[in-house]
Amino acid sequence: MSQQLAARFLSVRRQSETLAKPLSEADLTIQAAEFASPGKWHLAHTSWFFEEFVLRPVGKIFAESENYRYLFNSYYEAIGQRHPRAIRGLITRPGLNEVLAYRHRIDEAVNNWLEKGISPEQAAIIELGLHHEQQHQELFLTDILYNLAQNPLYPACYSLKQEPIAKTEVAGMVAFSGGLQQIGHTGVGFGYDNEFPQHKVYLEPYRLASNLVTNADWIAFIEDGGYENPLLWLSDGWTTVQQEGWRMPLYWVKRNDGYFSMTLYGLLPIGMAAPVTHVSYFEADAYARWAGKRLPTEMEWEVAAGKQPIHGHFADSGIYMPVPSNAEARESLRQLYGSVWEWTASPYVAYPGFKPS
Amino acid sequence: MSQQLAARFLSVRRQSETLAKPLSEADLTIQAAEFASPGKWHLAHTSWFFEEFVLRPVGKIFAESENYRYLFNSYYEAIGQRHPRAIRGLITRPGLNEVLAYRHRIDEAVNNWLEKGISPEQAAIIELGLHHEQQHQELFLTDILYNLAQNPLYPACYSLKQEPIAKTEVAGMVAFSGGLQQIGHTGVGFGYDNEFPQHKVYLEPYRLASNLVTNADWIAFIEDGGYENPLLWLSDGWTTVQQEGWRMPLYWVKRNDGYFSMTLYGLLPIGMAAPVTHVSYFEADAYARWAGKRLPTEMEWEVAAGKQPIHGHFADSGIYMPVPSNAEARESLRQLYGSVWEWTASPYVAYPGFKPS
Amino acid sequence: MSQQLAARFLSVRRQSETLAKPLSEADLTIQAAEFASPGKWHLAHTSWFFEEFVLRPVGKIFAESENYRYLFNSYYEAIGQRHPRAIRGLITRPGLNEVLAYRHRIDEAVNNWLEKGISPEQAAIIELGLHHEQQHQELFLTDILYNLAQNPLYPACYSLKQEPIAKTEVAGMVAFSGGLQQIGHTGVGFGYDNEFPQHKVYLEPYRLASNLVTNADWIAFIEDGGYENPLLWLSDGWTTVQQEGWRMPLYWVKRNDGYFSMTLYGLLPIGMAAPVTHVSYFEADAYARWAGKRLPTEMEWEVAAGKQPIHGHFADSGIYMPVPSNAEARESLRQLYGSVWEWTASPYVAYPGFKPS
Amino acid sequence: MSQQLAARFLSVRRQSETLAKPLSEADLTIQAAEFASPGKWHLAHTSWFFEEFVLRPVGKIFAESENYRYLFNSYYEAIGQRHPRAIRGLITRPGLNEVLAYRHRIDEAVNNWLEKGISPEQAAIIELGLHHEQQHQELFLTDILYNLAQNPLYPACYSLKQEPIAKTEVAGMVAFSGGLQQIGHTGVGFGYDNEFPQHKVYLEPYRLASNLVTNADWIAFIEDGGYENPLLWLSDGWTTVQQEGWRMPLYWVKRNDGYFSMTLYGLLPIGMAAPVTHVSYFEADAYARWAGKRLPTEMEWEVAAGKQPIHGHFADSGIYMPVPSNAEARESLRQLYGSVWEWTASPYVAYPGFKPS
Repeated sequence: MSQQLAARFLSVRRQSETLAKPLSEADLTIQAAEFASPGKWHLAHTSWFFEEFVLRPVGKIFAESENYRYLFNSYYEAIGQRHPRAIRGLITRPGLNEVLAYRHRIDEAVNNWLEKGISPEQAAIIELGLHHEQQHQELFLTDILYNLAQNPLYPACYSLKQEPIAKTEVAGMVAFSGGLQQIGHTGVGFGYDNEFPQHKVYLEPYRLASNLVTNADWIAFIEDGGYENPLLWLSDGWTTVQQEGWRMPLYWVKRNDGYFSMTLYGLLPIGMAAPVTHVSYFEADAYARWAGKRLPTEMEWEVAAGKQPIHGHFADSGIYMPVPSNAEARESLRQLYGSVWEWTASPYVAYPGFKPS
Repeated sequence: MSQQLAARFLSVRRQSETLAKPLSEADLTIQAAEFASPGKWHLAHTSWFFEEFVLRPVGKIFAESENYRYLFNSYYEAIGQRHPRAIRGLITRPGLNEVLAYRHRIDEAVNNWLEKGISPEQAAIIELGLHHEQQHQELFLTDILYNLAQNPLYPACYSLKQEPIAKTEVAGMVAFSGGLQQIGHTGVGFGYDNEFPQHKVYLEPYRLASNLVTNADWIAFIEDGGYENPLLWLSDGWTTVQQEGWRMPLYWVKRNDGYFSMTLYGLLPIGMAAPVTHVSYFEADAYARWAGKRLPTEMEWEVAAGKQPIHGHFADSGIYMPVPSNAEARESLRQLYGSVWEWTASPYVAYPGFKPS
Repeated sequence: MSQQLAARFLSVRRQSETLAKPLSEADLTIQAAEFASPGKWHLAHTSWFFEEFVLRPVGKIFAESENYRYLFNSYYEAIGQRHPRAIRGLITRPGLNEVLAYRHRIDEAVNNWLEKGISPEQAAIIELGLHHEQQHQELFLTDILYNLAQNPLYPACYSLKQEPIAKTEVAGMVAFSGGLQQIGHTGVGFGYDNEFPQHKVYLEPYRLASNLVTNADWIAFIEDGGYENPLLWLSDGWTTVQQEGWRMPLYWVKRNDGYFSMTLYGLLPIGMAAPVTHVSYFEADAYARWAGKRLPTEMEWEVAAGKQPIHGHFADSGIYMPVPSNAEARESLRQLYGSVWEWTASPYVAYPGFKPS
Repeated sequence: MSQQLAARFLSVRRQSETLAKPLSEADLTIQAAEFASPGKWHLAHTSWFFEEFVLRPVGKIFAESENYRYLFNSYYEAIGQRHPRAIRGLITRPGLNEVLAYRHRIDEAVNNWLEKGISPEQAAIIELGLHHEQQHQELFLTDILYNLAQNPLYPACYSLKQEPIAKTEVAGMVAFSGGLQQIGHTGVGFGYDNEFPQHKVYLEPYRLASNLVTNADWIAFIEDGGYENPLLWLSDGWTTVQQEGWRMPLYWVKRNDGYFSMTLYGLLPIGMAAPVTHVSYFEADAYARWAGKRLPTEMEWEVAAGKQPIHGHFADSGIYMPVPSNAEARESLRQLYGSVWEWTASPYVAYPGFKPS
């Protein structure tokens, strides 16, 4: 098991550096908003996680540890003081090379220790650290896009090797019978604490769209006056539309020759068959109302998703933007996994019986 | 004349790069406050100035000009749209190397053109550009200090080759007779538009301190409760003291073993004989009241300074922090030039008859 | 039916004026925060509701209607432009007497019309208007307390005729079996649109405390360091505790001789047996964690409450602050109705199948 | 002398109440911005001044004094804690009648004391209190206008008994020779501390317009694009024009049938011959540049004004808005006194040798 874990450790750790490689030190240093941490911070923070929870308990600490612990700790209030989140983008020292060297020291130390054999509890912590790092890889891409999108020159962070396939399956509705259903994590394999405990919910019968809402669908919403009609919006949503001057999704730009969007590949024409992204809850809710539908509840979504294979367009494909639904999709509900996050009507609250770990 | 100007052009332009050289791309990219522009921006902006006012009028424009004009224009509203000042720190592209290459292209083009011989009007514009660049060198150091000072590790930007001499002349008061005096620029040599026109002012007799206020003086003020006594402060000053929690000058830190200050050389113990810096107008005014003195007016200062040789500690000394008054000072008023900016009691307003250029 | 409705109309409308009577025109004009509307605004807005939805459809409009419609409309975006909520407290004209005269004109017109006999649909609108006005009576008291509490003299708005009884029943836990339950409004009698539709939910067995948390309980929480222990708080809650400097409930003041609270009767010593009030969701959640409990979900609360008689301490008692649990309580869960609003763990979201009316 | 002072005391004190009389308690309670104190606050604060500086030193204090001292003290930091300026508009208690009763108690006590005969030093303090109260009468009108102007119904505070005469003298330029001049207060009669000491200034020859800028002049500036031309504005001014969306003076409204202004008499058509009011320094400066002129310096204005009789349209005329220049004006520079405040190019700074009292 250790060997398999060691291989996975190496692979996940390398993926973070693969994402960072094409970017300059400056690209990885800046922070355009409190919520958009610098790329360098993500690289350091995910390493700090292994130092704090894996190496420190077995007595391995590095010279720079106290400073790094202060700078790269995040929400772990219990671990001690930490650097204010809003000014992470002002930390030019340690520089990128120092942070990469820190990563490598951590990698080597964890690897050495893995080779000696570890207990199942220790393996579980490493497993958690790898899921944590994968979450941060997702955030890394999200934040880099946000940080670079502030540049009026629309710089490209990556180069696009191939065009995504543009063919989409015909969409329809898929029916579910509801009734008393079990949701929550089964306990087999890794799960975050907030996926527990399994519990019963009662659902009325419902239907979900087989495909995600596309950019073409969204343009129809825009051009039908979706952003100008208060009756389509929740009250707070409408206030926000007016205060922020929302007229299209984040990163979109309208020009004489059509709609474009800032992406990790620079400014690109909107892909009509690709799923819409960078819309807020309020926009998703307004769209659903405009379409004569509603957002599903989290329970409805989870019950439906539980019946589908985990298959989709993930970051390891090397294409860091969502792609159209694949013609050969093996699922009745397409694109449930990969490509985009999906809005439900449910707020993020604990499952009944939840215990924080 | 052209040759002399060409030499001076080269020397001033090189000085900017000398200041930037020890800093990383990240150091030169960030901006910790709206007023603290990135170092890279200063490097680009001073080059843009020559492109805009020297090269563009004679038909030389570069491929990147439109973008750079937008990004690196500053207060010249008349030149067209410009990038919002508050987010200069988010421009990672063009990168440092591209900006340096842009500098070199400009240098070469100006130099070629200088070699061909230029008119006195054209020479005057280059002269203005060089003074402009020297002002920005001063701002560069000010802004780099501010930007790096946000790092809790107190990084050093430069390394200090030698300790500044700590000996200070005994201070006293120097008397001036006042009366009807001439102030403003004589018109001989370079002058900014706001140094004109020469005009008469009437002054009562007055006295100025021969030396600048030292850090030792300031510590006496602090320890006598200067920051806690509302009677010493202007009303707006006292409000600010309370709102901002001022207890000592900007960048100072008090530790068990004394006062320290963040400098371009990292965190250093306060030099007792060096002039105090990084104090606001309100603090200078309160200090003067505490000392039983007042700030001089601009007119008093200018009349006094006009009688002194221009001699002092400037940035070309390679020591980027103020030094104590030199024992061999040739002036009755020491340190009028170099080392620090000095506060007067006068607001910054136009001379009578001022015409903006 | 009309006669009964007319009597109820008169009674509810009079209650609003009874609440306003002891207050000065100035007390009823000010607004200390965007969320705390002036008392005069509540008096006018509840009258405007009847004009807009009852009188206007049958052709009765008053001379001042257009101005009042603009000033006293609230969230009814569809009705047209309205006066910005944040500056309701700057409307000194119309004055209090004019607003009271407007109320009386509306009362008379509605009454005349009721006497002529009305349809069930029209009766339903009046019924809605009366519930709307009763909601605003609750807001009136909430807002008056907030607005007057800004005065450092702690003025009393009302005079307390009798001391609330201080005896409280011994508290315990009451068990509920859960399972598949029906919640939502049955459709018999008045219901707001968000109380529909009835639907099934599945609950695990659970227990609720028989009594509300008292001020004595809360003081134990405070004195055990409840406000200083980050482990008791949700992350956003802990941030708020620190940013706002929370140390006790809103309106509480600690003095040498104990805890006091600003109330509608001025500053009073805390009543130990009375339920705690003016605590946020974050505080309620932290308290529950401290007590080794959790907040109930809305579904748990509603299923439990549906089995209890509607009985409690309401505003028509003339005592405008919460009172201790009554010794003769006929319920196993005491104080479910009246006295205070109660926090659940559930966010405010629509029931499945909800349709806005 | 005492009798004369007693008569003047009575007259000034009555004038404050005359200004307040037509306004409601609510009108006098609200505060629409931090700088616009409530009318009731002015009534109380001017009375507190006499209590603090006249009665308290001779041992007369009232029961409510401690609370009133806290609530109605203003910038006198040295007197102790005071109520935050921004929330003066939330003080509904003491009510208007209590504040008026407080005024009368103070009036009676001061009067009793005046009758007994007082020293010249005591008379000087009363004299200061009366000038202080007259300043607050001016602020009272300024603040009431600002506070009531937030009401979209444009209520009238006062009723206009007669139309101001609309005839204006032909305007021209008046020449002054400059040279070495004496300015500052002579010491004969009352003077504020910041009018001292007398001192010499040197002025170049200059000319001032004989008449104030009229509303007709200002409309010409507006319609010539004055608010859209950045070249006319100081840099900070132009930023403000854009941020605030300035297009005309404060309180002006443009309708199909012309320009109107909110006044203390409600919304009135602009009087073409009346001097323009409610323009900022930036606007005055831009207007002067547009007109091919400049603002005078304070020194120029003071030297010119010192040669003119004090004669003009003051508040005791009972017309609380500026009026056109009177045809029978006895001055070569008209409207120097009364009607409006005038902008100079000079910042507000102390005279050389100023000592705060």
